[in-house]
Amino acid sequence: MPQFLSTADADFETRFTALLNAKREDSPDVDAAVAAIIADVRARGDAAVIDYTSRFDRLELTPETLAFSEAEIDAYCAQVPPAEKQALETAAQRIRAYHVRQMPENAFWTDPDGASLGWRWSAVSAAGLYVPGGLASYPSSVLMNAIPAKVAGVERLAIAVPTPDGKANPLVLMAARLAGVDVIYRVGGAQAIAALAYGTESIRPVDKITGPGNAFVAAAKRRVFGKVGIDMIAGPSEILVIADSDNDPDWIALDLMSQAEHDESAQSLLITDDAAFGQAVAEAVEKRLETLERRSIAGASWRDYGAVITVRDMDEATALSNRIAPEHLELCVADPQALAEHCTHAGAIFLGAWTPEAIGDYVGGPNHVLPTARSARFSSGLSVLDFLKRTTLAQMTPAALRAIGPAAETLAISESLEAHGLSVRARLNKLNDTPEG
Amino acid sequence: MPQFLSTADADFETRFTALLNAKREDSPDVDAAVAAIIADVRARGDAAVIDYTSRFDRLELTPETLAFSEAEIDAYCAQVPPAEKQALETAAQRIRAYHVRQMPENAFWTDPDGASLGWRWSAVSAAGLYVPGGLASYPSSVLMNAIPAKVAGVERLAIAVPTPDGKANPLVLMAARLAGVDVIYRVGGAQAIAALAYGTESIRPVDKITGPGNAFVAAAKRRVFGKVGIDMIAGPSEILVIADSDNDPDWIALDLMSQAEHDESAQSLLITDDAAFGQAVAEAVEKRLETLERRSIAGASWRDYGAVITVRDMDEATALSNRIAPEHLELCVADPQALAEHCTHAGAIFLGAWTPEAIGDYVGGPNHVLPTARSARFSSGLSVLDFLKRTTLAQMTPAALRAIGPAAETLAISESLEAHGLSVRARLNKLNDTPEG
Repeated sequence: MPQFLSTADADFETRFTALLNAKREDSPDVDAAVAAIIADVRARGDAAVIDYTSRFDRLELTPETLAFSEAEIDAYCAQVPPAEKQALETAAQRIRAYHVRQMPENAFWTDPDGASLGWRWSAVSAAGLYVPGGLASYPSSVLMNAIPAKVAGVERLAIAVPTPDGKANPLVLMAARLAGVDVIYRVGGAQAIAALAYGTESIRPVDKITGPGNAFVAAAKRRVFGKVGIDMIAGPSEILVIADSDNDPDWIALDLMSQAEHDESAQSLLITDDAAFGQAVAEAVEKRLETLERRSIAGASWRDYGAVITVRDMDEATALSNRIAPEHLELCVADPQALAEHCTHAGAIFLGAWTPEAIGDYVGGPNHVLPTARSARFSSGLSVLDFLKRTTLAQMTPAALRAIGPAAETLAISESLEAHGLSVRARLNKLNDTPEG
Repeated sequence: MPQFLSTADADFETRFTALLNAKREDSPDVDAAVAAIIADVRARGDAAVIDYTSRFDRLELTPETLAFSEAEIDAYCAQVPPAEKQALETAAQRIRAYHVRQMPENAFWTDPDGASLGWRWSAVSAAGLYVPGGLASYPSSVLMNAIPAKVAGVERLAIAVPTPDGKANPLVLMAARLAGVDVIYRVGGAQAIAALAYGTESIRPVDKITGPGNAFVAAAKRRVFGKVGIDMIAGPSEILVIADSDNDPDWIALDLMSQAEHDESAQSLLITDDAAFGQAVAEAVEKRLETLERRSIAGASWRDYGAVITVRDMDEATALSNRIAPEHLELCVADPQALAEHCTHAGAIFLGAWTPEAIGDYVGGPNHVLPTARSARFSSGLSVLDFLKRTTLAQMTPAALRAIGPAAETLAISESLEAHGLSVRARLNKLNDTPEG
């Protein structure tokens, strides 16, 4: 059974704060091991990557077989059943259509002082996408990371995916192909991140690395940050459902379980303005937990971190939601758009009971890589912007320099940066000699 | 004297690569000390902050005097000479006018399947800006950090600035006031970052921390990242000037020195298609170094990290520039806009000889907080986007769910996420019972 809270209870604030601050993940400290692996890959290149792959994945590679060949990818793709291929294509098409709209515009204008100003967006040249092996090897995540990169214009997109005992997931390779990935390395762990960041004889370095991974991958991403860009370090998944009593308790129960089944550290929360409805959802969860394939994982998550919170009204619900800053927020209420206006901190909002969160995981269009652990207070889900950077532009005319140069000179002198001031003054002096401004 | 390189030399590639990879900064390892300070501030709150301020800044504070009072800020602002006040106002107005244009648009549309999709931007609720004390306490950096935050809509903007021996920089306080900063704490170092991230009895926690600082501040920002958002960790400043022979060597020399004077680890590079012009600039630098106030710093930077690179043509120049990915790029050529088209990796571009980089440091309008150490390959300067986050929106109708739900179900099953599939299936079954879609 999850926790039951009510804003009417005297101890609500204490219990809610404890819920907010519950530490759901114990990351093992693998930093020293990861530092050694990175140093080894930098020193020995391919040989180190091949050694670690032999040791951790029980797979013997050569420099020539670090990457899948096109023929190998063809063979794996041929194993994908037609229905799954078509589902991947539907997802890829919808994700692409959404992310194309995110492309930002360049700008360049001339202001009243005669200064021309603006900015220009350009793509990261090369990006690397990490894909976990084993159970958490999700083809949907390949689409969600690779498509924004390609929409942004990344020229060279590489994937690193471990293939323990040489086994690869055909849907992952199919998703990579659909998304336009250029090369797929069968390498995982910290050694893959090191190779992507620093390069080896056979693996070209990239400028940005994204994608989820285990504690070794996360620690390696933190370590190579600065040498390359990285995306966020994702924590366990979360959902908050705000639902009134005009809902089928079983639907809401399934939505809660669809996060809980990810991970024993996942968190599923329900806020409702009807205590009896909350009870009915909790009962529906218990019933579903009798038969769910991943009932052991989902049950542990629900028992340890789940909660049903009863509020007096929907204003209380949105206020609590903003304190939670959930990764996924489902609004199963009569007017979800109106309620969404008040929900300012959330990674993704799913509007209305016909929009289960799972739609967003696969085919909705928006990205499913979203800020966890309350970081929606200050960060956003993955987008094309993660694969773009902005160069600012400025061009003065003599007249513009005459208008604003003296202020720059004054501030430079006040900051004791004489050469800054002189670089402006030399030009202003020239203008005073030959009045062309 | 700086290094002289030419693309015509046989050893060019070796020397250029060495220049690219030169490690210009040795950060002391203060991580253990910083971890202890953060833990102490989390445990003891105000008392810890007050103790560290006494020890490091020789300043005795109380919970009541951690923040400047309005009367104190008034008194400091009254010390600012009118010319400097006016220069700050000019800068603030121009920076604001530029950053207002960066505000991104919300979007919401309905696609052919009947799914409504979109996103909505919202501001970080509270942000903290670190301002170094002492020599590097730049009022211009206060404007460059605080104005984008306020333009984005940050409700509560705090500054932390150390005031060693109780001495504050009046221009910093004036800049904070002009930018609309809400509270200014006279606290610095790792203890300030810890207080902003975790809060104390008297210092409210924020969601995002930006601004430059020393090794302690940088290490503390890395440590609190995740609890709050942070901006980039800035390295020493850099400039690359691409100039043809139709320039005054003294102007170019001053532009190079305006970076070199920041820091002995700064880097100033010149690329020119005329070896004799490169020599003339180097001579002009030597002449300026005889009298420059900060000649000791600027001279060391120029000697250790400066370089004059001669190329055969401007195509070579832009290719090298893209490998360097400079923080600041000045294009002193006949058609700078045309050349800029080819410069894809740069933090900020200054177009033409009338646009010295120092204009951008103060009054141009674009931000002067820019990616260093070649990180312009994958990141951008500070902008309003750093103080905004995006929530994605999705709303299905019954018809939309009928159209795309089955693909989601197929992919969920292929990923062994049964509850994901069931959450879609339960709704599809309802639609099949009562055909309303």
